[in-house]
Amino acid sequence: MAITLYGAKICPFTQRVEMALYEAKAGYSRFEVDLVNKPEWFARDVNPASKVPAIAYGGPQTSPDQPSPLSTKLTESLVLLEFVADLYPNSSIFPTDPILRAKARFFIDAVTTRFLPPYMGPIAHAKSFEPFWDALDSIQRLLPEDKVFAISDEFTVADMAIAPFLGRMEVWMKNDIGAYPKGEGLKAAEYFFNGERFKRFVRYFDAIKARESYKHTIDMEYLRNAYAARFEPLRAKLQEAAAAANANATTPTGKTASS
Amino acid sequence: MAITLYGAKICPFTQRVEMALYEAKAGYSRFEVDLVNKPEWFARDVNPASKVPAIAYGGPQTSPDQPSPLSTKLTESLVLLEFVADLYPNSSIFPTDPILRAKARFFIDAVTTRFLPPYMGPIAHAKSFEPFWDALDSIQRLLPEDKVFAISDEFTVADMAIAPFLGRMEVWMKNDIGAYPKGEGLKAAEYFFNGERFKRFVRYFDAIKARESYKHTIDMEYLRNAYAARFEPLRAKLQEAAAAANANATTPTGKTASS
Repeated sequence: MAITLYGAKICPFTQRVEMALYEAKAGYSRFEVDLVNKPEWFARDVNPASKVPAIAYGGPQTSPDQPSPLSTKLTESLVLLEFVADLYPNSSIFPTDPILRAKARFFIDAVTTRFLPPYMGPIAHAKSFEPFWDALDSIQRLLPEDKVFAISDEFTVADMAIAPFLGRMEVWMKNDIGAYPKGEGLKAAEYFFNGERFKRFVRYFDAIKARESYKHTIDMEYLRNAYAARFEPLRAKLQEAAAAANANATTPTGKTASS
Repeated sequence: MAITLYGAKICPFTQRVEMALYEAKAGYSRFEVDLVNKPEWFARDVNPASKVPAIAYGGPQTSPDQPSPLSTKLTESLVLLEFVADLYPNSSIFPTDPILRAKARFFIDAVTTRFLPPYMGPIAHAKSFEPFWDALDSIQRLLPEDKVFAISDEFTVADMAIAPFLGRMEVWMKNDIGAYPKGEGLKAAEYFFNGERFKRFVRYFDAIKARESYKHTIDMEYLRNAYAARFEPLRAKLQEAAAAANANATTPTGKTASS
């Protein structure tokens, strides 16, 4: 059955699904959706919520930009990870043992509910890194000391659920891109990649980065440019706002900016 | 392998899992956790997050209040629904077709991300019913016209994910229990159960209520008393606050309560 993946290179949720397809050795076509100028047929014929990733499955073979009404359209990246695993039960992307499956899903739930909420704080809102470090710490505590990956020595959907976010984190930290003040990204990179606190996490991330499926589905140069275009204006804007508030705080009325 | 379910009768997340165990004809022990006075061993020996539901699976047979360190402890109700389905692959609680499985998971995702966020608004915070009606509407639109349940004519984990919340909704609406002003619950019950807008939803809920697994795992009288004890003081508190704000709004300074 034909699989068409609708996705975007910048989108971590897309990369989750593309890694699963690659690891499962699924044949698939891929259509890059321009998120700024989405084709008018996308919401109409593929995903009414107008979000990527989406999969068109089955139906007659058509060009990806002419999706058939006869194919099944499926969405939500975590639903799609399970779908790919269900289609390829003999691949190793999902363990077969019920307990390990539950552990994989528990790990994914922790990624959704603990890791993702503070993930954009520093880069998009110049918020403190602390909640983000705490979230990374709570994920790190789930990583077994004696296994390579989150659940076992196999690379599974649990790892695919977090990998794209780690890759993007590496891009913004190491290139100092974000709404936070200049230099904070490099300091964060030093703290995460070379410090004591996240040794286990870095070893985990190194194992992820060695996977062909990861390398094949991430374009660091593209991400660096896309992130710079998106977040550098935010830094400038927040600096202007801070300067204005600062000027206000020192006016002769004696009132402070926080009043 | 022995299964012990740690849960609480008031807790809708517990009921999800208990329905799955019942439908799968799994043998299990059940321990009622007093959520107000949790036994000291619960966080230590069962769930460090101290939440229900939790399952202890396998290990030597022990009394539920003396959980063995040798059993596997699993948590998070949606993880547990999948776990029960994985343990009992020949039960019909989860479809076997990958597309139907994806649809079940998409439905569950909609329950989590669309239905649950506004669900406590009216009852716990006296918020407008509108976001809650819109959420119910968006779930209703996912219900197939030509099937009994959310995915097919079978009663699956998708239905179990929402059923306990509908049951509790019925309790607070029909008994007019909530932080909202007196009478609003009965009006909401009339609107939902007897109006035009939610005809498909009510038919769906009727089919759920006919399941033995639903009837066996819900205690309407217990819920009515527990909800009244919890939410009636809230209504009194909000009414006092409104009266105070009102008095303030009519003081001679002419300032309104919203200033």
